[in-house]
Amino acid sequence: MATKLDGEGRATALAALQDRGWTLVDGRDAITKRFVFNDFNAAFGWMTRAALVAEQMNHHPEWFNVYKTVEVTLATHDVGGLSDLDVKLAEKMDVLAG
Amino acid sequence: MATKLDGEGRATALAALQDRGWTLVDGRDAITKRFVFNDFNAAFGWMTRAALVAEQMNHHPEWFNVYKTVEVTLATHDVGGLSDLDVKLAEKMDVLAG
Repeated sequence: MATKLDGEGRATALAALQDRGWTLVDGRDAITKRFVFNDFNAAFGWMTRAALVAEQMNHHPEWFNVYKTVEVTLATHDVGGLSDLDVKLAEKMDVLAG
Repeated sequence: MATKLDGEGRATALAALQDRGWTLVDGRDAITKRFVFNDFNAAFGWMTRAALVAEQMNHHPEWFNVYKTVEVTLATHDVGGLSDLDVKLAEKMDVLAG
């Protein structure tokens, strides 16, 4: 079950995410980050590892890939905005990106 | 080396692609198609197989994935539009999608 972010917990989580390059999406309660790798092999390799994590969490990203770049957007449909699952998936994606 | 599509070859290739659900992108010499699978596992599994083909061709898609949907756009930067490589990659993607 996803828990919608609010109050102080939300502020703290967003501050940490913003320090790592995530930004809020205009007009939507979602976060986004652009990951740039060395080449397609590295970009899609990272996507594959992130996909396994997402599938295990049963929480999936919206993502756009062109060659070595992946633009990720995270939000939680069930809560109509950002939840703890987005924070967790963002953290795991950052760790996988090194 | 990519060869830009033109003349009758282009018309024939585009007609075949359009029969299989590809459409021309507005304002850009590119083709696009929306693939819908049963779930994320199937969608990302297909992306992985297509990624291996793309890497082998050294010709990569632009693609956007949300859960079971993948929106693909193909064009060839080196020729500033559609080339034979886009036609080949589109065909391989269609075959992989079954």
